[in-house]
Amino acid sequence: MLTDPDLVMSYRHDEADLVPYGTPSVVVRPRTTGQVSAVLRAASRHRVPVIPQGARSGLAGGANAIEGAIVLSLTAMNEIVDIDTENHIAVVQPGVVNAQLHRAVAEKGLYYPPDPGSWEQSTIGGNVSTDAGGMCCVKYGVTSEYVIGLEVVLASGEVLHCGRRTAKGVAGYDLTSLFVGSEGTLGVITEVTVRLRPAPEPALTLVAVFDTFAAAGAAVSGIVRSGLQPSMLEVIDRVTLSAIEAYRPMDLPTTAAALLIAAVDSGSRAPDDLARLAATCHEARAADVYVASDAAEADALLAARRLAHPALEQFAANLFPAGGGVMVDDVAVPRTRLVELIEGIERISTEHGMVVATVGHAGDGNLHPIIVIDRSDPVSIAQGQKVFDAIMSLGLSLGGTSTGEHGVGLLKRDWLAREIGPTGLKAHRSIKAALDPDNILNPGKIF
Amino acid sequence: MLTDPDLVMSYRHDEADLVPYGTPSVVVRPRTTGQVSAVLRAASRHRVPVIPQGARSGLAGGANAIEGAIVLSLTAMNEIVDIDTENHIAVVQPGVVNAQLHRAVAEKGLYYPPDPGSWEQSTIGGNVSTDAGGMCCVKYGVTSEYVIGLEVVLASGEVLHCGRRTAKGVAGYDLTSLFVGSEGTLGVITEVTVRLRPAPEPALTLVAVFDTFAAAGAAVSGIVRSGLQPSMLEVIDRVTLSAIEAYRPMDLPTTAAALLIAAVDSGSRAPDDLARLAATCHEARAADVYVASDAAEADALLAARRLAHPALEQFAANLFPAGGGVMVDDVAVPRTRLVELIEGIERISTEHGMVVATVGHAGDGNLHPIIVIDRSDPVSIAQGQKVFDAIMSLGLSLGGTSTGEHGVGLLKRDWLAREIGPTGLKAHRSIKAALDPDNILNPGKIF
Ligand SMILES: Cc1cc2nc3c(=O)[nH]c(=O)nc-3n(C[C@H](O)[C@H](O)[C@H](O)COP(=O)(O)OP(=O)(O)OC[C@H]3O[C@@H](n4cnc5c(N)ncnc54)[C@H](O)[C@@H]3O)c2cc1C
Ligand SMILES: Cc1cc2nc3c(=O)[nH]c(=O)nc-3n(C[C@H](O)[C@H](O)[C@H](O)COP(=O)(O)OP(=O)(O)OC[C@H]3O[C@@H](n4cnc5c(N)ncnc54)[C@H](O)[C@@H]3O)c2cc1C
Repeated sequence: MLTDPDLVMSYRHDEADLVPYGTPSVVVRPRTTGQVSAVLRAASRHRVPVIPQGARSGLAGGANAIEGAIVLSLTAMNEIVDIDTENHIAVVQPGVVNAQLHRAVAEKGLYYPPDPGSWEQSTIGGNVSTDAGGMCCVKYGVTSEYVIGLEVVLASGEVLHCGRRTAKGVAGYDLTSLFVGSEGTLGVITEVTVRLRPAPEPALTLVAVFDTFAAAGAAVSGIVRSGLQPSMLEVIDRVTLSAIEAYRPMDLPTTAAALLIAAVDSGSRAPDDLARLAATCHEARAADVYVASDAAEADALLAARRLAHPALEQFAANLFPAGGGVMVDDVAVPRTRLVELIEGIERISTEHGMVVATVGHAGDGNLHPIIVIDRSDPVSIAQGQKVFDAIMSLGLSLGGTSTGEHGVGLLKRDWLAREIGPTGLKAHRSIKAALDPDNILNPGKIF
Repeated sequence: MLTDPDLVMSYRHDEADLVPYGTPSVVVRPRTTGQVSAVLRAASRHRVPVIPQGARSGLAGGANAIEGAIVLSLTAMNEIVDIDTENHIAVVQPGVVNAQLHRAVAEKGLYYPPDPGSWEQSTIGGNVSTDAGGMCCVKYGVTSEYVIGLEVVLASGEVLHCGRRTAKGVAGYDLTSLFVGSEGTLGVITEVTVRLRPAPEPALTLVAVFDTFAAAGAAVSGIVRSGLQPSMLEVIDRVTLSAIEAYRPMDLPTTAAALLIAAVDSGSRAPDDLARLAATCHEARAADVYVASDAAEADALLAARRLAHPALEQFAANLFPAGGGVMVDDVAVPRTRLVELIEGIERISTEHGMVVATVGHAGDGNLHPIIVIDRSDPVSIAQGQKVFDAIMSLGLSLGGTSTGEHGVGLLKRDWLAREIGPTGLKAHRSIKAALDPDNILNPGKIF
């Protein structure tokens, strides 16, 4: 239990910029499910809000504290309980870091696909609570497709086991999926059972360089239409490329309008698939297409992609020394409408005279337009908010969703209401009230 | 609206034997969501139970009527609303029959994988409400992995839209997954959005013949351990083989203790995979292993597998002319524990002197032990019930679940309670009360 004000301060918020937060009265770092249960029983009795936290790498303010609340940090529950190599299942505590699980199962020839950019930092509990995506999700699916069982401590302190360890099972409601993505508002996840896959062969990676961002989007739509199943399909725009190159020089083609990074799992069909990917990029007028010469070069490209967020924060700080910041958006549209989304983002940024850097899981139709703002300038913040809203609005009008993977948190509460409408909100509220009648679990988040 | 007593009678129950049902007062067959909504508003006002029904092919009594209730049959809402070939998505009404959707998307080079044995009969609405599995689910996953959006009419008559048409999306709770598998107790599904896959190449099929059923189970565990990903892995035991051969003669090896039917998607790796499958079967002491010579032979094998249920009903009728019947069980265990399950089923059937025929989706660890009973003999029924219970008990003790795919309905209410415990039941009840406060939707089902 931490009560030292300095320590407590560092648990106030996640990585989202411009989202409100308060100072918790105490931070509890339980080591057992029993301790989590005791905290929730006490909190229920005294009606004190509880904020579950993983690594606080979230980008929607979902883990932000409320003034006077109890922060329940699950990072000390970080054991891998079991890796069942025969049934391809792992059981882990919520504080296990994503990359830690990746490496542990890889040692046994297995693979846990979901790989958010924050994988060296974010926890499985946080990943499950946000239903995190990642780079390989275009082929292998997001976190929810891997979680088959959970141990959850309810607001009352009762311990619920849901799901199964079997390949299939339909006994009762799918409570497991209900808790996945519930951002700490329905229960505290204290154990996670995930399925694993056999490790894929190392991938072959291709890079395509485009003179316009829209052309890169067209290539993605073409790839989707063709039925090809790349194991990665990421896009990086010019601003982001320059920011990464400035942050860590590695000879990226910074004059390109956009870079597409695509991979296919190796195997006998891979060269063929790679050739078809390349052809589709050429059809979409790629200026240049080349295959990574080896695994090291491919890894360097992925590392570059993962640096987008810190690199853009640095870029913002250089641009606005008084208080550069970034507003990270997370819109997903049907994949054939990517070009419309990209052209719309460019139009919106020009109209408002704001710098918007865009990266994303293009193969999922999921982009992160990142709005660069001067936090010391209220006008810049207001303009940023306008751009943010215009992009969300555009996404919805294209049949999209206001959050592809980061979640709603505090950042997108208004957008959620717009997206799901009054009947949807009512259903959300009634389920929340059913499981957390005193509204102590992460109150005010999502809706 | 049907009120003619003879017509109404035919809507009383599904395909489950020995499960209670009543006679509805009326059967309504809506054509529009608005009509469904009107029925539910009226039913809510008058507190009349509503029983949603698809094709009534269910095997757990989930669609069984209650005396005096309104049966809401969705079979007339049977239009395929949209097949989006670019984004690989279909939107369908709930009364669309599974095979109808398969064929419609196949014409466009796409594939809707979930294929329950009842696919020529059961509806997508029923499949979604039970989270149906099938033969190709071992590789491609069950219904829940394909449903990305729903239109649901709530008990109040309000129309809820949940989910999305994008590849990814995490806006709010995953209500879609909550309704999938909810067996008509939380809402009436009036539209379903599913994702599709590119059509796979025709499969290569292998048959392995075993002298003991347990050896077939050992082969399955071996295949799972090896990391091979067959697109089908079904098992048929001796009793079932004989019943099918008697029902429709096709030269099945009826002296075998068990038959394993495995398939791999064709493609350049297929011959290799097939060879590894064959080797694993030989290691498990298969008496004979052969590859289907062509697609026609493979299709005949699948057709045989699909005849198991009617063939065993016929077998029971021949064995007990006074009232032969079958109790169909549906247990799933971790796939490495299949041998223990199989040996246990054999022991239990011997101990109770009852005939138990077993077929199943072995690759999922999901077996259907089918207990042959004389419905005219209370002793036979009581013995059948004992065998049923002993098998369930065994399944749970092996870390399994009491229903792999058929659902809970009325048949397994007691088993659900055992499987999920009091905290699980309480969570179920509170969610049910949140969405259906007057308990009018399929009351008494599941829990
Ligand atoms: C550089 C960078 C790159 C990123 N890349 C991606 C990406 O590619 N894909 C993606 O999806 N996200 C990405 N993110 C966002 C973030 O990393 C994910 O949302 C991640 O899943 C959060 O995990 P966490 O452990 O940090 O959780 P936190 O941020 O601490 O919490 C996230 C939410 O989960 C809740 N929560 C956490 N643990 C529990 C628990 N045990 N029980 C109940 N509730 C809990 C919190 O209350 C909060 O609502 C990125 C973030 C950064 C900074
Ligand atoms: C020969 C045979 C083989 C089978 N093989 C398989 C198999 O391989 N895998 C498998 O999983 N199952 C199998 N089954 C079981 C059955 O076919 C499935 O459960 C199927 O999904 C039921 O669909 P249905 O349209 O017949 O639904 P019904 O039996 O009419 O209803 C099933 C449940 O869903 C509810 N429901 C139906 N439609 C709606 C709706 N629109 N909205 C809300 N609730 C609704 C009902 O209330 C009920 O609880 C088999 C059955 C038979 C007879």
